[in-house]
Amino acid sequence: MKIVIDAFGGDNAPKEIVEGAILAINKYSNLNIILCGDEKKIREILNGRDERIEICHAPLVISNDDVPTEAIRGKKESSLVKAFDILKEREDVISLISAGSTGAILTGAIMKIGRIKGISRPALAPILPTKKKSDVILIDSGANIDCKSINLYHFAVMGSAYYSALYNVNKPRVGLLNIGVEEHKGTELTREAYSLIKDSGLNFIGNVEAREYMSGNVDVMVADGFAGNVLLKGSEGAVGALLSVLKNSIKSHTMSKIGALFMRKTFKEIKNRMDVLSRHGGSPFLGCKKLVMKNHGSCKRENILASVDQSIILYQNKLIEKIEDLIKKQVGEE
Amino acid sequence: MKIVIDAFGGDNAPKEIVEGAILAINKYSNLNIILCGDEKKIREILNGRDERIEICHAPLVISNDDVPTEAIRGKKESSLVKAFDILKEREDVISLISAGSTGAILTGAIMKIGRIKGISRPALAPILPTKKKSDVILIDSGANIDCKSINLYHFAVMGSAYYSALYNVNKPRVGLLNIGVEEHKGTELTREAYSLIKDSGLNFIGNVEAREYMSGNVDVMVADGFAGNVLLKGSEGAVGALLSVLKNSIKSHTMSKIGALFMRKTFKEIKNRMDVLSRHGGSPFLGCKKLVMKNHGSCKRENILASVDQSIILYQNKLIEKIEDLIKKQVGEE
Repeated sequence: MKIVIDAFGGDNAPKEIVEGAILAINKYSNLNIILCGDEKKIREILNGRDERIEICHAPLVISNDDVPTEAIRGKKESSLVKAFDILKEREDVISLISAGSTGAILTGAIMKIGRIKGISRPALAPILPTKKKSDVILIDSGANIDCKSINLYHFAVMGSAYYSALYNVNKPRVGLLNIGVEEHKGTELTREAYSLIKDSGLNFIGNVEAREYMSGNVDVMVADGFAGNVLLKGSEGAVGALLSVLKNSIKSHTMSKIGALFMRKTFKEIKNRMDVLSRHGGSPFLGCKKLVMKNHGSCKRENILASVDQSIILYQNKLIEKIEDLIKKQVGEE
Repeated sequence: MKIVIDAFGGDNAPKEIVEGAILAINKYSNLNIILCGDEKKIREILNGRDERIEICHAPLVISNDDVPTEAIRGKKESSLVKAFDILKEREDVISLISAGSTGAILTGAIMKIGRIKGISRPALAPILPTKKKSDVILIDSGANIDCKSINLYHFAVMGSAYYSALYNVNKPRVGLLNIGVEEHKGTELTREAYSLIKDSGLNFIGNVEAREYMSGNVDVMVADGFAGNVLLKGSEGAVGALLSVLKNSIKSHTMSKIGALFMRKTFKEIKNRMDVLSRHGGSPFLGCKKLVMKNHGSCKRENILASVDQSIILYQNKLIEKIEDLIKKQVGEE
């Protein structure tokens, strides 16, 4: 089993990425990793710890300032393009992991790896925490801005297959992000998507308001990329604002400072619960022919390890094949 | 100066509404209030405290289950319709306050009071807290689902005038909710709205991501009603989930319980900072010819008082006239 990793994507590359690869190698005895990037720099970090690690030299790096299509076409010697070439050409490579430019990763995935037949819009599906013990995935979270109802239907199918493969849940609860629960609520897009998903055979629980998405009562939240992005970023912003007000208040009251010491365990629990990325690594780009994992730009070594964990689970649970089957079935029915 | 209040709107009506009216009467010696609703029940609560309070008897109540247009047309003897009639007919009544059905209030405002010339879509603009000391208003938050760019432009104008009137700020910073900061980002709608608002003479700071809306760096956040609703409800949901995880964790650790006692002041500060409604009452329905304040269904007496406060400030700072002037100017220029 092999995984290819773009060692030069993200704010903490290459150090944290390479260290993450080493963590993964130590965890899985049947795993080989191919690191793409400047060989000399990678070797320096590896410092001899290169068992089951192959290096694919790539002198260039794609940055967030690069135009994605131009970068994928033009920067053939970049760590990301080299990684895509390897994912494409080698059958035993099951997944690509990168913390680089989102646009470039998505463009590369579509141009180099290709879409599953029937799916016009692959989508990013990050995992978010809920009030309860379960997580919720949001699909799409910003890759697809102007969506049609068929795209939202595909998001529902792919999201359901993903949740099912990741958590071993048979029929995850699929909800459609809307501004009210009644079937007629929302835009033309949501109304059309509602009736498509309703007839899909998925476990569709109907419209779900933004307020409810972290309630633990929905597993797969379907949205167009614009609304999904607003939901994702808006909740990050709100939680950030709350924690910032909390911190400042603690700082300015001696009693609160003392209280905060007693509450260490609670603060740690909150951090763990909210920090889903450490548990699950990146978001897969669903709808491509092979697994492509997009990690957060600020990711650390444990996030890379988590993305390896997730890649292996999704590969073993045959995520790609499941999506292909579901879409094929639907295309056949039409 | 007179204000009309729907005494039978909301979950805590009529008790909390009537008590709120009494608070307002005690605060403002030059204020008269007209309470609409079942006279006998209102008198019972007033219990003789009826100085400067007039009662307009209305035996019916519009509920959330009523279809708004039918209710406004058909339930002429309801507390809300009576209140609208009074706002319309009496020149010295400066504002209407209701915690009843949002749909009925918006419909009543448009049908009974009418829109400011040039504005096709009035909008709700709730106030939200930020990390800093300032607040941010969100316009629209769900009244208008399918928007055109001209509507978003009007939201920018109305929101700016509202913020300016409420906080005595000369040129509030207006941002457009988008999924990236660059001018070309987002949908056709946001790109068109961007260029309209850019040329408006408002203090337009460009696109603002959902993550930044509580940063304190933007005063007026402009969005279509769908995205605005997702932002508003999504952040409520996320904050609620975080607080719920916090509470459960405190309950399950003795040390944390002790810590929480020490942190009382901090928890109170957070509650006050987050609970903007108590400070500002409801959201005005901007774009109507007179002030219509929509309060939250769960509002208490202090929220009614806050809505009276806000009505008086907005009246004295000539909000309606300001919006009329700005729109007239724009219409003239076209």
